[in-house]
Amino acid sequence: MKQKLMFTNHPGAAIDELAAGMSPSKVFVIVDTNTEKQVLPLLAVMSESVAGAQVITVGAGDVNKNLDSLAGIWRTLNESGATRSSFVINVGGGMVTDMGGFAAATFKRGMRFVNVPTTLLAAVDASVGGKTGINFNGCKNEVGAFAEPEAAVISTIFFNTLTTQELLSGYAEMLKHALLEDRQTFIDLLDYNFAGTGFDKDRLLTLLQKSVAVKERIVSEDLHEQGIRKALNLGHTVGHAFESYAMTDRHSPVPHGYAVAWGMVVELILSHMELKFPSDMLQRYAAYVRSNYGVFDITCDDYPALLKLMSHDKKNASADRINFTLLADIGDVRIDREADVENIKAALDIYRDMMGI
Amino acid sequence: MKQKLMFTNHPGAAIDELAAGMSPSKVFVIVDTNTEKQVLPLLAVMSESVAGAQVITVGAGDVNKNLDSLAGIWRTLNESGATRSSFVINVGGGMVTDMGGFAAATFKRGMRFVNVPTTLLAAVDASVGGKTGINFNGCKNEVGAFAEPEAAVISTIFFNTLTTQELLSGYAEMLKHALLEDRQTFIDLLDYNFAGTGFDKDRLLTLLQKSVAVKERIVSEDLHEQGIRKALNLGHTVGHAFESYAMTDRHSPVPHGYAVAWGMVVELILSHMELKFPSDMLQRYAAYVRSNYGVFDITCDDYPALLKLMSHDKKNASADRINFTLLADIGDVRIDREADVENIKAALDIYRDMMGI
Repeated sequence: MKQKLMFTNHPGAAIDELAAGMSPSKVFVIVDTNTEKQVLPLLAVMSESVAGAQVITVGAGDVNKNLDSLAGIWRTLNESGATRSSFVINVGGGMVTDMGGFAAATFKRGMRFVNVPTTLLAAVDASVGGKTGINFNGCKNEVGAFAEPEAAVISTIFFNTLTTQELLSGYAEMLKHALLEDRQTFIDLLDYNFAGTGFDKDRLLTLLQKSVAVKERIVSEDLHEQGIRKALNLGHTVGHAFESYAMTDRHSPVPHGYAVAWGMVVELILSHMELKFPSDMLQRYAAYVRSNYGVFDITCDDYPALLKLMSHDKKNASADRINFTLLADIGDVRIDREADVENIKAALDIYRDMMGI
Repeated sequence: MKQKLMFTNHPGAAIDELAAGMSPSKVFVIVDTNTEKQVLPLLAVMSESVAGAQVITVGAGDVNKNLDSLAGIWRTLNESGATRSSFVINVGGGMVTDMGGFAAATFKRGMRFVNVPTTLLAAVDASVGGKTGINFNGCKNEVGAFAEPEAAVISTIFFNTLTTQELLSGYAEMLKHALLEDRQTFIDLLDYNFAGTGFDKDRLLTLLQKSVAVKERIVSEDLHEQGIRKALNLGHTVGHAFESYAMTDRHSPVPHGYAVAWGMVVELILSHMELKFPSDMLQRYAAYVRSNYGVFDITCDDYPALLKLMSHDKKNASADRINFTLLADIGDVRIDREADVENIKAALDIYRDMMGI
């Protein structure tokens, strides 16, 4: 079953319409301690279903995406008389939609649920694919299920509650999707402005809808992750290396989206070197990243450790040649491209130069 | 995906063939403390995959079909390096196949698994339908998922380890399936003999295969439990009342299968009264039950409580008329038949007479 994606800045009406179509025996809303304070009051004014729902609150943060919180949700559903014809509305970031989706998918072997992502990252990334689950025994998403919500109701009105850092983390995924799609989509994103007294929510909703459509198309073309879905790894070979290096060697973690934004600079440089990716687009992207995300500061002394991290990426068999997803142009994706170590070092040199390090 | 049902008294070869086709990274066997002692050594001699597998043992009995045991399975899978290409073999009764199936279906969002039912009830009842799960917060099967195993390997060689009571509990479901099918299938079951120094395992396997095929057909004709699947409720309206009455009022529980066997006597009497179900078949069935299952002892003083329990059954809206699945003949099923209280009392009178109470 393909889920319904509803892009709207009137999410209350969308939720009430969905609920009316289901005649649920009871409605539950799952939030974390942040969205309970920041989003729920707003949504309760907009939606009768939310206003009348029983609220289940879990602790905020990935550390609470665990078996204890999950069992707490199951227990509340059980003790509140939830049935298979009840209905769950998950309101929060990826942590709430992942765990709330798994709770709903497994309570009495499956209740219906709707996701209302409240972060840009959850909206752009977690809305497609039906992945639900929790962390377990120190491993991320170790327990879970594939389960599609009835719908995802996607709005940008909640993004007021996000920090600029959270917004930019999600925006990096949108930049990636645009690079996989076409030049106009990409330029539209570079021209959009988060700064100022308030961002343009309706414009962002349009850009977001386009971005999610790109991901949907790629995922639907390759359900079993055999081929073109690797396009979504763009920026991630270098990005993961930056992320791990910051965490483990420098003890100073960086947001995942930032690491991907920087990683894409290096991988577009490699794309230019190996596949003639157009230099004007590379320049514009690097300038955008430098101005909005700042720089990830490296010297040539860091190269050996970074190369080791890249070669440890699960997709690489050999340490001398490293697998990348590269672009011959915007929208012209080449998966499974191997680059040798000398070229990667050269790309890192150019990255430092472009970033003014 | 439709699972594969393999009826064989060489289960080791079947398991090894399945494993060979999957090239698993690692094999796990889930057993309870009973099947670990009574079945696993036998199966390890027959199957290289089982002999080389990592064994995960859970406590025996429905009381251990809980979140703690489930978390223990997940933890062992995690700490033993299980991956999505590992493979789980569940060896046990319904408790092990339900919980082991759920653990496998949710670890890393889904590993492949095979069920090897070791009780007649699990073989006849739990092999079809893909229901997995655990009890939670005092409610049976409150948490779970629909997940089909790659295959169910069904053998009668393990049934040596069962008590006669356990065998007869499963056999009641087979008798029910036969009544829903045709006269020859039914008579074959009445003629089969458990008693003596050892039952005929190959003959039982043939009867079992036929029985599971009946259930498969009915389930496949009505995947969403809207209509003909109610045929499988035969014997259960009265059976559940007997079971609850024994448990709650008499504090002397009876096995579920026994309650169904007795319940079917009453419901065949009702079928005779309302739909002319043939009296020779009714007589033969009642005699078989009396001789093998003994009698559930009731007087007319028990009727009001029993009728109340029947009317509380979730399928009944009114207390005066009670919903049954009845038979006009063997294989001629009439769902949603309402009987009034006076006729049910008359049927209970006849039951007492036929059972010699």
